[in-house]
Amino acid sequence: MAFEFRVLAEDTSTPARVGRMHTAHGDVETPVFMPVGTQATVKTLTPDDLQAIGTSIVLANTYHLYLRPGSELIAGLGGLNQFMAWERPILTDSGGFQVFSLGHLRDLDEDGVTFRSHIDGSSHRFTPETVVRIQEELGSDVAMVLDECTSYPATEQETRDSFERTSRWARRARDAHEAPEQALFGIVQGGMHDDLRRESAGQLVDLDFNGYAIGGLSVGEPKELFYEMLSVSASELPRNKPRYVMGVGAPEDLFEAVVNGIDMFDCVLQTRLGRNGSLFTADGRVNITNSRFRTEPGPVDADCDCYTCRTFSAAYLHHLFRAEELLAYRLASLHNVRWTIRLVEEMRERIRRGTFASYRSEFLARYRTTDSGVREQQRARWQETRRRKARELLARKVYEDS
Amino acid sequence: MAFEFRVLAEDTSTPARVGRMHTAHGDVETPVFMPVGTQATVKTLTPDDLQAIGTSIVLANTYHLYLRPGSELIAGLGGLNQFMAWERPILTDSGGFQVFSLGHLRDLDEDGVTFRSHIDGSSHRFTPETVVRIQEELGSDVAMVLDECTSYPATEQETRDSFERTSRWARRARDAHEAPEQALFGIVQGGMHDDLRRESAGQLVDLDFNGYAIGGLSVGEPKELFYEMLSVSASELPRNKPRYVMGVGAPEDLFEAVVNGIDMFDCVLQTRLGRNGSLFTADGRVNITNSRFRTEPGPVDADCDCYTCRTFSAAYLHHLFRAEELLAYRLASLHNVRWTIRLVEEMRERIRRGTFASYRSEFLARYRTTDSGVREQQRARWQETRRRKARELLARKVYEDS
Repeated sequence: MAFEFRVLAEDTSTPARVGRMHTAHGDVETPVFMPVGTQATVKTLTPDDLQAIGTSIVLANTYHLYLRPGSELIAGLGGLNQFMAWERPILTDSGGFQVFSLGHLRDLDEDGVTFRSHIDGSSHRFTPETVVRIQEELGSDVAMVLDECTSYPATEQETRDSFERTSRWARRARDAHEAPEQALFGIVQGGMHDDLRRESAGQLVDLDFNGYAIGGLSVGEPKELFYEMLSVSASELPRNKPRYVMGVGAPEDLFEAVVNGIDMFDCVLQTRLGRNGSLFTADGRVNITNSRFRTEPGPVDADCDCYTCRTFSAAYLHHLFRAEELLAYRLASLHNVRWTIRLVEEMRERIRRGTFASYRSEFLARYRTTDSGVREQQRARWQETRRRKARELLARKVYEDS
Repeated sequence: MAFEFRVLAEDTSTPARVGRMHTAHGDVETPVFMPVGTQATVKTLTPDDLQAIGTSIVLANTYHLYLRPGSELIAGLGGLNQFMAWERPILTDSGGFQVFSLGHLRDLDEDGVTFRSHIDGSSHRFTPETVVRIQEELGSDVAMVLDECTSYPATEQETRDSFERTSRWARRARDAHEAPEQALFGIVQGGMHDDLRRESAGQLVDLDFNGYAIGGLSVGEPKELFYEMLSVSASELPRNKPRYVMGVGAPEDLFEAVVNGIDMFDCVLQTRLGRNGSLFTADGRVNITNSRFRTEPGPVDADCDCYTCRTFSAAYLHHLFRAEELLAYRLASLHNVRWTIRLVEEMRERIRRGTFASYRSEFLARYRTTDSGVREQQRARWQETRRRKARELLARKVYEDS
């Protein structure tokens, strides 16, 4: 049976809903948080770990897997599920976000985009058709069309040119797509303009995809603008199809997505923060390397049911981070992913009971969000690291080429 | 009930034997391989992982834990078992090996040894008495006396001076030791001299320890000399006490130890090689980063029952190493530790059946040992890294002090 989505329950006072996606690798209850397995592994965790903490679907990155080890190699080994020994559903992104964040290492035209590999500087080309083929080779359950991720900030005309190309590419991707069991999702763009968001969504809905993603958000804009664009985009999408907001993972953002009727989200935040010692609790994020945890006999989060919190003191985790032990990154990642999955499980339960709005209020009243200044600093640091690596790579490549 | 050791079975044609150590945290069947948890964690693995692969006892390093997080802190949190959430027995070394391998960062006298921390350059002192107290604070099941690890090469007089001090220190440690449930082992030294090895063993046996370790081996000497000293040292030790050869983990060395009646061994080799992509198989070590594994659909070792080999292709593991994914180090460590534990399980079975000698021959006929040249290169590289770090630290410390 091919891909299917059904709404199972709706909240009484908000657009939040519980649904079920049926895929070739099993069912997924929504709303769902998808841990990110960029290189065919959710960093530090095994498939067994992921199943044990209630992961029902993971995301993998087409850009990375295409470059290494190669989608043909993965196809030859039975597809991505078999390659990474993950029996449950997989969603692959289109690689568009990665290619467009490469900045001056890529060259865009109407037909597609040429870019340099971040691994060895070699030249590659993505078109809507090749990206569909690559995802068919990977054999994911949900594939995404190649989109142009509109830069931020952008003028209205730039934004229009960009989302209209995304729509033309979406049509080509739809026409090229052949795998009968694989769902294909369109991606709404439209920058930070209400009307363009609506127009983009309308064009994609006309193409009749299995589901719709909302892209181009959380790219450095103020939180209020992010939430407004999220809401406008979601409101234009059909009720009977899954809605997916890409690259969103902060707890307050998950609540904002779900309250707007979003069903799916993915983020590297859980594992990346984990590797930096930043751990989710009901009161907000804490950094375990802080000296106040040095002698703490209790767990990081007494309410958490993850292996880390059930087994180890905060003092032990503090020690592992101070000693730079690899186990630290694993235990922290496990906690952050489980904590988020459990949060979303609770959201589903509250939607079913029709009390999502009050659950959201309770949670946000207690949860201390990370200051937007800190967030921007973190983002800027990561982007600068990426840019620097890209520059170094290009310099090396140019040197080698000459 | 306090520490106890019993020989359960003896091989028919060699000194190899099966025994059982009883400790406050449970029983340990010998011969036993002890994975090393230097900083209160066997690198990349959880206590659950370790139990699942049949680990019955782990080693932890007194030197490292004394410096960070501190033995008093661990005692305050309920001891080392509780701190690292490991319910089975723990052996702690004395820290002697670490202190003496610091080279010019330490200062030896009759009473003890003063050394610089490798973490922050701060000055510390170990005596036979303080090392006993630290291990009592850690609450390990088996503690070791502080010994002087004789340098290699050394003259006969240097070796004599050294092992005689070790014997005097052993007596002081024995007299200082108070924890009734903790076993205390003496350490045989004597360098590369048959007669001095015998003399050292004799002096320690007179002090009547719960068990005896053989130290000062595998420090750069030729394999033949190592095996000769091992054999001479072991032959002088009483039958009814456990015998432990320290820092030995290569499969061929484990066979050599067991055939000489050794009951216990520990080594960082399994996890360190694992992190470098070097994996044990019945045919010898293979490096998974080798391009011949790029498309290999089968496991690294088809005969292995570990999670890694049961779950993943060699191609996937190859990919994880090439992509420098943290999961690579975990899966490889898990394999190497399980592979070794299973090898020793099989040794026990063959001893019980009285066929250990033929098992050893079969194994060694198939297993391609790593060329001694390669081994020496690896050792030299590690030692050079340690020395460089120590020099840098000392330079920084001196600078900061001024």
